[in-house]
Amino acid sequence: MLKNDSFLKACRKEHVDFTPIWIMRQAGRYMKEYRAIREKVDFLTMCKTPDLVAEVTLQPVDILGVDAAIMFSDILIPVEAMGMKVTFTEKKGPAFANPVRSESGAEQLDILDYSKSEEKMPFIREAIKLILQSLDNRVPLIGFAGAPFTLATYMIEGETSRNFSWIKRVMYTQPPFLHNLLDKIATVVTHYLQLQIDSGVHAVQLFDTWAGYLSPDDYKEFALPYVQKVLNGLNKKGCPVILFANGVSSILEHMSSASPDVIGLDWRVDIGDARKRVGDNVALQGNLDPCVLYAEPPVIKKYVKDILRKHGPGPGHIFNLGHGILPDTPVEHAKALVEIVHELSSKHVIGDE
Amino acid sequence: MLKNDSFLKACRKEHVDFTPIWIMRQAGRYMKEYRAIREKVDFLTMCKTPDLVAEVTLQPVDILGVDAAIMFSDILIPVEAMGMKVTFTEKKGPAFANPVRSESGAEQLDILDYSKSEEKMPFIREAIKLILQSLDNRVPLIGFAGAPFTLATYMIEGETSRNFSWIKRVMYTQPPFLHNLLDKIATVVTHYLQLQIDSGVHAVQLFDTWAGYLSPDDYKEFALPYVQKVLNGLNKKGCPVILFANGVSSILEHMSSASPDVIGLDWRVDIGDARKRVGDNVALQGNLDPCVLYAEPPVIKKYVKDILRKHGPGPGHIFNLGHGILPDTPVEHAKALVEIVHELSSKHVIGDE
Repeated sequence: MLKNDSFLKACRKEHVDFTPIWIMRQAGRYMKEYRAIREKVDFLTMCKTPDLVAEVTLQPVDILGVDAAIMFSDILIPVEAMGMKVTFTEKKGPAFANPVRSESGAEQLDILDYSKSEEKMPFIREAIKLILQSLDNRVPLIGFAGAPFTLATYMIEGETSRNFSWIKRVMYTQPPFLHNLLDKIATVVTHYLQLQIDSGVHAVQLFDTWAGYLSPDDYKEFALPYVQKVLNGLNKKGCPVILFANGVSSILEHMSSASPDVIGLDWRVDIGDARKRVGDNVALQGNLDPCVLYAEPPVIKKYVKDILRKHGPGPGHIFNLGHGILPDTPVEHAKALVEIVHELSSKHVIGDE
Repeated sequence: MLKNDSFLKACRKEHVDFTPIWIMRQAGRYMKEYRAIREKVDFLTMCKTPDLVAEVTLQPVDILGVDAAIMFSDILIPVEAMGMKVTFTEKKGPAFANPVRSESGAEQLDILDYSKSEEKMPFIREAIKLILQSLDNRVPLIGFAGAPFTLATYMIEGETSRNFSWIKRVMYTQPPFLHNLLDKIATVVTHYLQLQIDSGVHAVQLFDTWAGYLSPDDYKEFALPYVQKVLNGLNKKGCPVILFANGVSSILEHMSSASPDVIGLDWRVDIGDARKRVGDNVALQGNLDPCVLYAEPPVIKKYVKDILRKHGPGPGHIFNLGHGILPDTPVEHAKALVEIVHELSSKHVIGDE
């Protein structure tokens, strides 16, 4: 039995005594404890070493007091397991030496089924086991994967892109090729998430980071069906699924049509408007601008209050940033954020303010 | 008298026989005629040399047959005239060696009034004169400026930014400083646009490129008031004002509240939805994803048809891309786009389809 299940209750739109909070990229470079480990080992090795994964996954639970842990990993781990060599550099982020831009490139990919997924990424099950032991039922553990469109973006662009010229070129000039690739990635993502669920995570988040750079019609054609395929393919076993995208404002209703349990909002949408647009059947996660954490706690408090007020006291709100926490964020400010959300939302829920 | 005033009519929501089109960055690297001139001279010199400005401004009118010319320049020209040294490189775009991040930095800026604006940028009036001569009333000429928030972003970040960490840090930690800077920039932008209007441009566009990266509340506090100040300060003399932003979906109603004549839409919003959200009192410009131009004309036609159908046959639509045309766009595809828009919209308006 979980000691603090506020996050899962909020995912299910049940009553909570305070608004639960976790922070995207909460295990990361802004924390000296993370940097101390990261200094000794390269990023990929870290993702594949279960005891290191467990250690950094627990750091924000211990240091910040967040209401959920998220397994430390990277959305490109299963892409690497499909046979694409990836490198990570601090400055440029991830890069693939051989992006997939042709049928022959796509044919070389290993479309991992469940057992191949286990075999090629044995560290996943092992890391989840270690994390759950260390967590000792304090808070739930979130697993995650990149959504098919976002993974395809990296696989085709080869690196973080500015205009998404490559994937869009493929989208507009070779749509059958792209659909075929997305379908294969959706298969891999489904098995990969199922492996995490079977290993014991309590919820999963699907990161469709770049989907908001599509026009709504293109989202509907090239991103949504593959999110839907993943959601339909999972044996959820009670695990809530969070669907996150950047730039949700223009695709919110489409995302909602995939029926995730939770929609993760970036900061560029008013959460009160979002609630009106999607109705009460889905929980919402978000959505403070990560840069607000550069400010001192009284300023953070003002912005948190706005978000809590806009969502209102109804059930189904998980507090989070609208995007990952930035590496130069003062850790005390992240800590203050967690305290402020807990404090203000307790008042909020009991109608004290 | 203009021979083709369809663009201005559409700005004023008057009846047109076809939907007019121009293309953001229509004078640019995708055109060999532009590259031929650009090879001989650096970017800044080009912007400041009236006969070169006139030459490249006319190229898309002659080659593509667009319904409006836009003065070739850069939004950072008045920022350089304020005393900030800027460099342009193909790879990184514009960069300022000494970004403004303190009161003392801001105090060193030259807040150009009308006569100083003329004095420091004599090439503006001269270029407009030459362009108007060459255009010989074929199509109208658009002038432009960066909106205060977007210019402040460049001035504070120092270069094209990924997370806008610097300006947001300033926004959340020193809001009075930022407001003061934005107010000064708004003064400069107003005089700069007035100078263009007085020199004879037929319309002006205010580019608030980065404003859509703000939360709606932050847009309302840090971007909108200064757009409003510029609009209120202009003696428009009948010149329509187009307000463009990237990521309009989340700030559309706020933009509309500034009462521009036209709102320029990026591609991530359904133009039919946008029309419903803002009503009939404003014209809309846009909004094809620039990457659609990688595709062959039949595909371009499909996407153009969708946009024309979504906006509907009512007045007040100017066709454009949702962002600047990309340097690797085939020029024949840009040409095809212009023809397709003219052809389909003529049918559209006369109810032939």
